[in-house]
Amino acid sequence: MSKRQLSLNLFIYPGGHHEAAWRYQGSAADRILDVSYYQELAQRAEAQKFDAIFFADGPALADNVRYAQRFRFEPITWLAAIAVATKRIGLIATASTTYTEPYNLARLFASLDHLSGGRAGWNIVTTSTAQAAQNFGLPEHPPHHERYERAREYIDVITRLWDSWEDDAVVNDPASGIFADTGKIHPIDHVGKHFRVRGPLNISRTPQGRPVYVQAGSSDDGRAFAARYAEAIFTAHQTLASAQEFYADIKRQARAFDRSPDQVRILPGISPFIASTQAEADLLQDEFNELIQPEYSLTQLRQMIGLDLSGFDLDGPFPRHLIDTGSARGVASRFKLVVDIVDREQPTIRQLVQRLAGARGHWVIAGPPEKIADNIQTWFDNGAADGFNVMPPWLPGGFDIFAEQVVPILRKRGLFRGEYSGTTLRDHFGLSRPQSVFSGSIKAIA
Amino acid sequence: MSKRQLSLNLFIYPGGHHEAAWRYQGSAADRILDVSYYQELAQRAEAQKFDAIFFADGPALADNVRYAQRFRFEPITWLAAIAVATKRIGLIATASTTYTEPYNLARLFASLDHLSGGRAGWNIVTTSTAQAAQNFGLPEHPPHHERYERAREYIDVITRLWDSWEDDAVVNDPASGIFADTGKIHPIDHVGKHFRVRGPLNISRTPQGRPVYVQAGSSDDGRAFAARYAEAIFTAHQTLASAQEFYADIKRQARAFDRSPDQVRILPGISPFIASTQAEADLLQDEFNELIQPEYSLTQLRQMIGLDLSGFDLDGPFPRHLIDTGSARGVASRFKLVVDIVDREQPTIRQLVQRLAGARGHWVIAGPPEKIADNIQTWFDNGAADGFNVMPPWLPGGFDIFAEQVVPILRKRGLFRGEYSGTTLRDHFGLSRPQSVFSGSIKAIA
Repeated sequence: MSKRQLSLNLFIYPGGHHEAAWRYQGSAADRILDVSYYQELAQRAEAQKFDAIFFADGPALADNVRYAQRFRFEPITWLAAIAVATKRIGLIATASTTYTEPYNLARLFASLDHLSGGRAGWNIVTTSTAQAAQNFGLPEHPPHHERYERAREYIDVITRLWDSWEDDAVVNDPASGIFADTGKIHPIDHVGKHFRVRGPLNISRTPQGRPVYVQAGSSDDGRAFAARYAEAIFTAHQTLASAQEFYADIKRQARAFDRSPDQVRILPGISPFIASTQAEADLLQDEFNELIQPEYSLTQLRQMIGLDLSGFDLDGPFPRHLIDTGSARGVASRFKLVVDIVDREQPTIRQLVQRLAGARGHWVIAGPPEKIADNIQTWFDNGAADGFNVMPPWLPGGFDIFAEQVVPILRKRGLFRGEYSGTTLRDHFGLSRPQSVFSGSIKAIA
Repeated sequence: MSKRQLSLNLFIYPGGHHEAAWRYQGSAADRILDVSYYQELAQRAEAQKFDAIFFADGPALADNVRYAQRFRFEPITWLAAIAVATKRIGLIATASTTYTEPYNLARLFASLDHLSGGRAGWNIVTTSTAQAAQNFGLPEHPPHHERYERAREYIDVITRLWDSWEDDAVVNDPASGIFADTGKIHPIDHVGKHFRVRGPLNISRTPQGRPVYVQAGSSDDGRAFAARYAEAIFTAHQTLASAQEFYADIKRQARAFDRSPDQVRILPGISPFIASTQAEADLLQDEFNELIQPEYSLTQLRQMIGLDLSGFDLDGPFPRHLIDTGSARGVASRFKLVVDIVDREQPTIRQLVQRLAGARGHWVIAGPPEKIADNIQTWFDNGAADGFNVMPPWLPGGFDIFAEQVVPILRKRGLFRGEYSGTTLRDHFGLSRPQSVFSGSIKAIA
């Protein structure tokens, strides 16, 4: 295909992305611990030729599990179970550079890439919740810049582990009795500030060479990190202008790192309420917003901006003066996004909560299918997106409507594939397969 | 069933357990990185109503990858892919208490137990190779007693994480908007010498309550640990007498910990060469031994006993005087086993190497099906085993012969099930489902 193509990723949240989705009668709230439910979702996304599915993750229990389905199964095991029920679709999981040993993480993703035939992607996070620190013996959560410093070293370690077997190191010849050409297996001998890792990995190089590097940071550190390492970026924007600024900045920074801008796919989140008419779509969204539980929403908001509003009148003005913009707590990108909404729209607390309930700060849009497709195309054609992280308000129905009503329009306009042209996630995203950094190196294990 | 029943576990090693298995024409040497191969093996074991399959593991590359298929995919991801291709069989993976954070390990196994409907088992190891330490930033491998001290604390942490949601903590009621009864979710607030873990886990309690605790240590520390915590034990013995001593010791120690002896299943390894006659079985074994590569075997031996024999005549006497019995290196249980063989049989180096090549020191037996079944029954009836860890010399054929020719004899004698009577690994092993240690506790997250 010569024409530039959209990437579409299905972000799977148990019952859907609207915080009250699990209370909606069309959601699969009762199947959230049933692996076959997730296999079916992946199969539906694959039938639509989506690039990938994605699971978020965090190694701590969320605060507000009373009012929402906020458990977290371990996503790599889940994706392994999905891999063998699908053939083509990419499989992306979040994992933390702050709370997982690089040798262990390298093995988990290498195994997933092997067993899926080259469909693994790693969403690199530094983990933003202080609760996680307490599950891993740290007195307090490491500060933002220190987490990123560690993450940069982590990437270097894990990249070299994935590269430590050259592609042709495996001989596997029973006749001669030679399994591996050990001259093509390399120790990594990493000695750094945060890690000492000798290597090599104990798994041969994977079908993709390396799983795809995905990232979602939006702070200055996060952007610089993404521009340097990420091959796909999940990002949250409420407006075209904000997405354009982010897109231009990332591509510019990527160039400064001597990277080709097309090797960094930028996918903003979109959470669409779709119906035949605008009025019906608005009504559908209202139906979800009426299921919101304020106790839950205020906890969410407190996590985003570090401000406890439980004593305030929900229908009163949002107390803008109480936000200390100098000290972003929690996820930096979400903090900025909330402040932007408040400054732009002067909402009541309830209005703000409803805005955020849609998809935790991602772009929520309601309307008929043509409008959704038009918006997608506008962002795609105007330097705001290479594709989208599709976040259905509820599942599975919210995805099915998008698939049946919006995807055909995108396809008709020549913006989205009708068939897969490759077999790996790198193929779908149009990413090159990296050569091992050790190709030709003579420092080997034997 | 009132009659005491054997447990049978299929220990899966890529091409089989004989070190030259991958060179044997009947092995699946070319499919070792293909997940469908392992799914098929599990399905065959399930068709025979085996209790479980098992993957060993270690977070470092083995020394001798040149001459053997010594890679290691990450076993929990692999078992997740197998779980969804099977319905009943248990799924056991090794994971290290020395090199994995307990919160991460708790999540991996909890996810596996959820997605398999209660079939996960954890083979608890402290990891015995110095190479692993170098992949995890440690200056040297922690000594044996320190690894076990850490392991005991680890078990306490992970048990309480798995128990941190009571069985009925999940309400999941869309109408009331209550997902979880947070009064039944408990922080574990662990503060110890090796770990500080607040908890709770971010996954609800699993179908088995806790995955099954499996262990394989044979040192004094290892036995005490197994007697206290293990619900199934993998162990290596060359003689009935050795297995009886171990069996009696473990059951006695379990009683001393106030545990019921039947809640500790003891499964010695058995690697059978099976043919119609003894002569043919011996010939089959010879065929494997002729495929052995001495370079590989001597490296293996060096790892077991810390002695480099590469300069010695393979057909000369084993230099017993060079072994320092005061300083067991590597795996303590294997060291003892090698020394016992040397003292009992005075082998040449080649003879010793062939003895060990069978299944890394496990019991290798050659003969017609009746002889294999008789031996199994003798061990089972005479206080040496509750079942066996079946280690086919090669795969898949070595398993198929056992299944077709030995299992029916055991079944005919009423020693082994013809159908599963339960759905979980605990059911198969006859283990009780543990109540959460937090049942009724009032210290909760809200």
